[in-house]
Amino acid sequence: MAGIGFVGLGAMGLPMALRLVAAGFAVRGFDLKAAALDALTQAGGTRAASAAEAAAGTDALVLMVVNSAQARAVLFDGGALAALKSSAVVILMATCAPADTAGIGEEVEAAGRRFVDAPVSGGVVGATGGTLTIMAAARNEVFAAARPLLAALGDKLFHVGERPGQGAMVKTVNQLLCGVHIAAAAEAFSLAGKAGIDRRILLEILSGSAASSWMLKDRGPRMLEDEPAVASAVDIFVKDLSLVLDAGRAGKAALPLAAAAHQMFLAASGLGHGGADDSQVLRAYRALNEEPPSRTGEG
Amino acid sequence: MAGIGFVGLGAMGLPMALRLVAAGFAVRGFDLKAAALDALTQAGGTRAASAAEAAAGTDALVLMVVNSAQARAVLFDGGALAALKSSAVVILMATCAPADTAGIGEEVEAAGRRFVDAPVSGGVVGATGGTLTIMAAARNEVFAAARPLLAALGDKLFHVGERPGQGAMVKTVNQLLCGVHIAAAAEAFSLAGKAGIDRRILLEILSGSAASSWMLKDRGPRMLEDEPAVASAVDIFVKDLSLVLDAGRAGKAALPLAAAAHQMFLAASGLGHGGADDSQVLRAYRALNEEPPSRTGEG
Repeated sequence: MAGIGFVGLGAMGLPMALRLVAAGFAVRGFDLKAAALDALTQAGGTRAASAAEAAAGTDALVLMVVNSAQARAVLFDGGALAALKSSAVVILMATCAPADTAGIGEEVEAAGRRFVDAPVSGGVVGATGGTLTIMAAARNEVFAAARPLLAALGDKLFHVGERPGQGAMVKTVNQLLCGVHIAAAAEAFSLAGKAGIDRRILLEILSGSAASSWMLKDRGPRMLEDEPAVASAVDIFVKDLSLVLDAGRAGKAALPLAAAAHQMFLAASGLGHGGADDSQVLRAYRALNEEPPSRTGEG
Repeated sequence: MAGIGFVGLGAMGLPMALRLVAAGFAVRGFDLKAAALDALTQAGGTRAASAAEAAAGTDALVLMVVNSAQARAVLFDGGALAALKSSAVVILMATCAPADTAGIGEEVEAAGRRFVDAPVSGGVVGATGGTLTIMAAARNEVFAAARPLLAALGDKLFHVGERPGQGAMVKTVNQLLCGVHIAAAAEAFSLAGKAGIDRRILLEILSGSAASSWMLKDRGPRMLEDEPAVASAVDIFVKDLSLVLDAGRAGKAALPLAAAAHQMFLAASGLGHGGADDSQVLRAYRALNEEPPSRTGEG
C-alpha cells in the first residue's frame, strides 16, 4: 500500500495527508483549494487535478471530505472509485451518518473494491500530531491491510466491528456525549448564574468533582468569556447532533437528552450565534433564563 | 471552637465525626442508631441521648442529617438550636434545596446564632479520608471561624458566597451535571447497543476521548454489568434531580437537560429499579429502546 490518493485537504485533511507523507507513503492529493495542494507538494506529496486523478492506480483512497454527499460525489460521480486499482481500499474518514456510510460501503464493495469506515476524533491537534482516535469498521482482513496507514494517523486505533457504518455509529455516539456535555455545562452555569454564584469558583469546584467532564474543562473556561475565539462553531454541533438524532430515528431509538441538547444548539444558531464558539450555546440559555440586558431597566 | 455537637452519624456522618475526633476536637454525637454512637465513643468521642444534649453548650453544631426536614426537626423542634452557646455556629452539611437552606439560615440567625451552609461531595471515600469537597456559604467572619473545623473534613474547601443557600446551590448544580452525565452515558450505550457495537470497546474509546466524563468512567463499567453492586441508588438521583428542578422552579430557570434526565431516573424507579445502582438508569433506556426479551420470539 505504497500509493495513496487523498481527497479533502482541509483543516483536518491536510495535516493528516502530511503525516502520511512523513511516514513514507506516496500521497497524491486533491482539493479545490490550491494553497492546500501547494502545502502538500512542498512536504513531498504530489498534486492531482481531480479526485479521479488522485485515485488513479493507487492502492488506497482516503476521503476526508465534509460529508457523505461529497464522498458520494467524489467516488461515484467524480470517477475516483473506477480509477482505483481493482484491489484498492477506500477509507472514509469523514463524519457521516451511519446509514449513509453503510450505503457507500455497499456500493464500493459492489464495484469490487474494499472499504473501511474510519471516522476520527481528536481535532486539528490530533491530526497534526498523529494522535487521532480512529474508530474503524471493516472486515478483518481489510482492517489488517489498512492498519499501517491508519497507524500513521492515530495512536488510538480501534476495530469496532466488521460492518460499514459501525465506525460511523461509534463516532455518532461520541458526538452525542460531546454535545450533551457542552449543553449541560451551559445549563449548570445558567442555573448558578441566577443564584449569584461566582462562575470562576464554580468552574474550579465542578472541574475537580464527580461533575467533571472533558468538555466542562475544555469549554467551561470559554463560557466565562463573552467573545471567546472560535475553536469549533455552534453550527458544527447543530449538524453533529442532527446526525445523532438521524441515527436514532433510523434505529428507532429515543434519545431524550440528545434531542434536548440539539434544541439548545439550534436555538443558539437561530439567535444568530451559529458561527460563535460552541461554548456559546450558553447564549441560548441566557435567552431562556436571563432578562435581556437592554430591557433590564424597563421592568 | 473545641466543643462540637454532631447530629447524623450515617454512612457519611460517622466517618466525618471520626475525622473531627482525630483532629483533636471534642465531639459529642447523636444518632438514632446505637451502633454509630458506639463507634464514635470507641474512637474517643462522647455520646448524647438527644440532639439537644449533643448541642448543649457547644461552640459548633454540625448537621449531617438526611434532608432539610430533619435539620429543622433537630434545630427547632428538638431544641438543639436553643441549647447551643449564644455565639455558636450551626454548620448544615446535608444536601438540601437552596431555598430550604436559606430559610433555615434565616431562622438560625434570628435566634442569635451564626450559620454556615456547607454541603459536601466526595462520598464515603472522601468522608473517611478527609478529602471532601466542601461548598461553603457564610458571612466572611463566620466562614473564618468555621474554617479549622471544615479543613479537618475536606481538602477542597471553597467559600462560594456570603448568603446561606449559595452553598446548597453549588451542590445542586454539581448534582445537575452528575445526573445528566449518568443518563447521557446510558443514552449513548443504548444507541450503540442497537447498532451491535461492543460496549466494552465503546467504553474504552469514549473514556479516552472528548466524550469522557468522571461519571462515564465511574458508572460506565457498572453499565456493562447486569446486576452491579449498589454504590449509590437510582432513587438518590430521583431525589437529587428533584432538588435541581425545584431550584430551577424557584429561580424561574428552564433546565431542559436536567428535566429529561430526571424523567429517565423516574422511569427507572417506576419500573422497579429504584434500589438498583444508579448506573441502571440504563434499564429505563432498555425499556424505551429495546424489545423486551420475553417477547422477542412473538414476532
